[in-house]
Amino acid sequence: MADEQPPAAPPAEAKPAAATTAEGAEGAEGEAGPSKKALKKAEAKAKKEAEKAKRAAEREAQQAAAKAAENSEDKAKDNYGDRDIVTLSAPKVALKAYSEVHLGQTVKLRAWIQNSRMQGAKMCFVELRELGDWTVQGVIAASADGEPVSKQMVKWVGAVSLESYVAVEATVQKPLEPVKSCKVSEFELHITKMYCVARGPEMLGLTLGASNAAISSYEVDGQMQSLSLGGGGDKDAAAPSLSATLETHLDNIVMHKRAPLQQAIQTVRENVRDLFVEYLKQNDFHSFEPPCLIGAASEGGANVFGLPYFGKSAFLAQSPQFYKQMEIAGGRKRVYCVGPVFRAENSNTPRHMTEFTGLDIEMEIEESYHEVIYMLEGVFLYIFRNLEARCKDEIALVRSIYPSEPFKLPEDGKEVRLTFAQGQQLLREEGPEEFRNVTDDEDMSTPQEKALGAIIRKKYGTDFYVLDKFPESARPFYAKEDPANREVTNAYDFFMRGQEIMSGGQRINLPAELEARMVRKGVDPKAPGLKEYVNVFKQGGCPPHGGGGIGLDRVVAFYLNLPNVQLAAYYPRTPNRLFP
Amino acid sequence: MADEQPPAAPPAEAKPAAATTAEGAEGAEGEAGPSKKALKKAEAKAKKEAEKAKRAAEREAQQAAAKAAENSEDKAKDNYGDRDIVTLSAPKVALKAYSEVHLGQTVKLRAWIQNSRMQGAKMCFVELRELGDWTVQGVIAASADGEPVSKQMVKWVGAVSLESYVAVEATVQKPLEPVKSCKVSEFELHITKMYCVARGPEMLGLTLGASNAAISSYEVDGQMQSLSLGGGGDKDAAAPSLSATLETHLDNIVMHKRAPLQQAIQTVRENVRDLFVEYLKQNDFHSFEPPCLIGAASEGGANVFGLPYFGKSAFLAQSPQFYKQMEIAGGRKRVYCVGPVFRAENSNTPRHMTEFTGLDIEMEIEESYHEVIYMLEGVFLYIFRNLEARCKDEIALVRSIYPSEPFKLPEDGKEVRLTFAQGQQLLREEGPEEFRNVTDDEDMSTPQEKALGAIIRKKYGTDFYVLDKFPESARPFYAKEDPANREVTNAYDFFMRGQEIMSGGQRINLPAELEARMVRKGVDPKAPGLKEYVNVFKQGGCPPHGGGGIGLDRVVAFYLNLPNVQLAAYYPRTPNRLFP
Repeated sequence: MADEQPPAAPPAEAKPAAATTAEGAEGAEGEAGPSKKALKKAEAKAKKEAEKAKRAAEREAQQAAAKAAENSEDKAKDNYGDRDIVTLSAPKVALKAYSEVHLGQTVKLRAWIQNSRMQGAKMCFVELRELGDWTVQGVIAASADGEPVSKQMVKWVGAVSLESYVAVEATVQKPLEPVKSCKVSEFELHITKMYCVARGPEMLGLTLGASNAAISSYEVDGQMQSLSLGGGGDKDAAAPSLSATLETHLDNIVMHKRAPLQQAIQTVRENVRDLFVEYLKQNDFHSFEPPCLIGAASEGGANVFGLPYFGKSAFLAQSPQFYKQMEIAGGRKRVYCVGPVFRAENSNTPRHMTEFTGLDIEMEIEESYHEVIYMLEGVFLYIFRNLEARCKDEIALVRSIYPSEPFKLPEDGKEVRLTFAQGQQLLREEGPEEFRNVTDDEDMSTPQEKALGAIIRKKYGTDFYVLDKFPESARPFYAKEDPANREVTNAYDFFMRGQEIMSGGQRINLPAELEARMVRKGVDPKAPGLKEYVNVFKQGGCPPHGGGGIGLDRVVAFYLNLPNVQLAAYYPRTPNRLFP
Repeated sequence: MADEQPPAAPPAEAKPAAATTAEGAEGAEGEAGPSKKALKKAEAKAKKEAEKAKRAAEREAQQAAAKAAENSEDKAKDNYGDRDIVTLSAPKVALKAYSEVHLGQTVKLRAWIQNSRMQGAKMCFVELRELGDWTVQGVIAASADGEPVSKQMVKWVGAVSLESYVAVEATVQKPLEPVKSCKVSEFELHITKMYCVARGPEMLGLTLGASNAAISSYEVDGQMQSLSLGGGGDKDAAAPSLSATLETHLDNIVMHKRAPLQQAIQTVRENVRDLFVEYLKQNDFHSFEPPCLIGAASEGGANVFGLPYFGKSAFLAQSPQFYKQMEIAGGRKRVYCVGPVFRAENSNTPRHMTEFTGLDIEMEIEESYHEVIYMLEGVFLYIFRNLEARCKDEIALVRSIYPSEPFKLPEDGKEVRLTFAQGQQLLREEGPEEFRNVTDDEDMSTPQEKALGAIIRKKYGTDFYVLDKFPESARPFYAKEDPANREVTNAYDFFMRGQEIMSGGQRINLPAELEARMVRKGVDPKAPGLKEYVNVFKQGGCPPHGGGGIGLDRVVAFYLNLPNVQLAAYYPRTPNRLFP
């Protein structure tokens, strides 16, 4: 018995195999010594396992052989399949750059499969989307000799799920007739290689059709608001699948974003931002970054997010205004910033979000605060005029889904600037019955603003205008009163289609005047945050200055007449939504 | 008695005057009828009041006459004084545009009084600062006939407090010799009008001299860290007033910002940001705005600010990375963003802030993740090379106060890219004694990074380089492992002067691979925030992609070799500072 090694101590190199019999071995080790019965049992088990392993190996070998046989028949086997890394030697040509010179050339392309359709067993049409709404028709047909395209390859292409990301090599050809369903209609791609880099899901949470259609409804205070857009009701009835709620869109953010509609809105938004920056740079403005974290809820404390901050409290800035003013006091003369602002407002409306992007400017006033109005008017007109040129296609695409009348602009030199009192007078004289008694010292309501917008569009032919000299009572403590009439302020609102898009004005730059107006407005100049604010104007002489803050999301939404500002945002934040 | 009108009912138009006798009248009214005594008393009182009013009027007239007499002597009285609104007809010429053609011309200028010095009673020199470090010498001398400049005017000009903001009309002249103390040294202004628009304080909290000098010290964990910059200690001893702590600087934000030093740093910062955007636009990147408010502390939860959000919790984003990835999944191919990021880290070091500006990019990887490294390298080299050209003066100005060696760049085609393992090898072979035993699977410490930076500068002549293939253990769950060697990742850090300035890498784009690595790293793929994150890659096929995040404040601070990153920020936020 001495030469019989108990199975409890297998040689080290045999560990993995021995592990399969560990149960028996452990049982044996617990005893004084293995019994014959136990040994026999263990031997039998080991033999059984070995047979099992042999059978598995044979099965694997058979499968491999079968696969190899199948592949050897498939002469195109290297031309398709799922791959992490795909290197293709053909030149890359962006879809938007396709022209006659490419005819007959082999090119490569990386794109999403937007649609595919088998035509018999040997041919497949594939709609490929590269970027935005740039699509092209791909055709793949099995060659007679199975090279470069085999029947297996065509079958595989036809089975790749929609919205998979693929790398393609193909020859550019003229289609028999223009391909109406694709943006590139004068060319098609004869596919010779296709690799799937990332698979789309078996079932899309939101189809591209739905994500590229108008939303069917959105929630306002827990109530669903249905949309009917110029006969949208009929359209919905005809194609119910082409309509999803705003919630469904945002929950399926990837498909929401991929839709040409959203790509177009995002491009418009990007251009609004770029045009804003361009114009200000041309006019000697400097950019800066204001902080989001601030030490006091300086603008009164309502609707401000607060958070614990190393044993103290911090707040999220509702506007960069005080910091813009510090830049002026600090010697920068003309500044702008683009960044997030926060409102802790429990407003569930199509116009409100809790975080949005502010486009803010502030500038020294040299001789009159009208300099600021003209600058702001200039920046808006620059944006609107260039937007029409730069985003013609995108605007048309959005209008095809969310119909709207073109945005009317004033002729050069015929900009519409009314005083608040003139606006109220128009409302009294030409507005609807219920606004016949509006007075010059009360602020306008949203319905009044919209009614005035309609009157101005009719009378002056513009969707963009300025109301100036707002009543003193309607403006915050930092607003400069008109020295000639202290019942009004040197403050203005800008409007688009009857909706306020920017608020601004001249700010008080002298500390004594500021403190006095604070006291009159019932604001304590010694309160935390405000004390530091007033102090800024005492640290060194601050030039007169003014500016304004524009909501980027709203500009885009109002310009495109979108039913909800969330459609203009990248990742909208509302009281009910922090995802994605 | 009937025709005697009781004084209790004065005619309406006499109200204000009658009010002065109201006390007596009220007394009378309370009785059945006025007594003779009461009437007499009232009459006497009225007479007395009338006399008093007459005397007051006489006094006022006398004062006005005296003032008029005084003013009539001052023929320049309209050419100076404190005014809210100043309108001057002379053309405005920016100081940086002054040239020979302006000699003899009358111009206007709005500027801060940087310095002033009376020369006798009839002449005063005034240093005027317009923007940045652009200054000019102004001279005002009383004319023989008191017109356009009187002795009173010169006296007034000499008494206007420093850092007041003034509007000036003057003639451009050639000074007798170049004015060394001003940036505009070849011209001076002979002042004919000066109005004070906003007064500076009697006593500045921080003089311009101090705000334009190196900070003397800053706080680290409650301990003051003194600075001695290339003989700064001697300089401090010689001119102690030219040195203030960082705290004093920031508490006096207006003067801190006005200093040419800060103006120069701000201009460098602005250019870094602009160059970043320029390069990316040239390379087909799209901008977007990620949210700051997020629904879950997705990156592990450490150092994240949380806040109450309508009965739930929200968090402040530590990085826009997940949102950049969503843009890629959502079809944008190449994106960048510039915006605030937040770290709730109680680190009081010269390198940490709780809020800073991130420059972030993310792009599709077509054939190799080196595409991302080359792009990031390209953006940095574009920034550095153009910065030297665009901000030559500003960089020189900062170096005159914070000395530093020029930032060394690699020659074209000789960019330094080492693997992490190669970096460790250099440290072992050429680094200091204590780093002789570093291994390839542990992350580098800050002292190790700095030592490696010194070796690389000496060996390759560059302050800018890349370390690639960081060990798997040193990178988060979303980092893509190198398919050829799973002990390292396709992840890199970029360095400036031996300090990490950017972290980035290829991210996992396939949901199954992502979930598997999460589990291996002990991260729960079903945790709030992470579940939604993984889900993004399941909504539609997402291309391989990678990117990186750059701290703008640090780039500026490291490039200019500033002793503290807070000097590169506009409004630094630290655990101890939320103001201004």
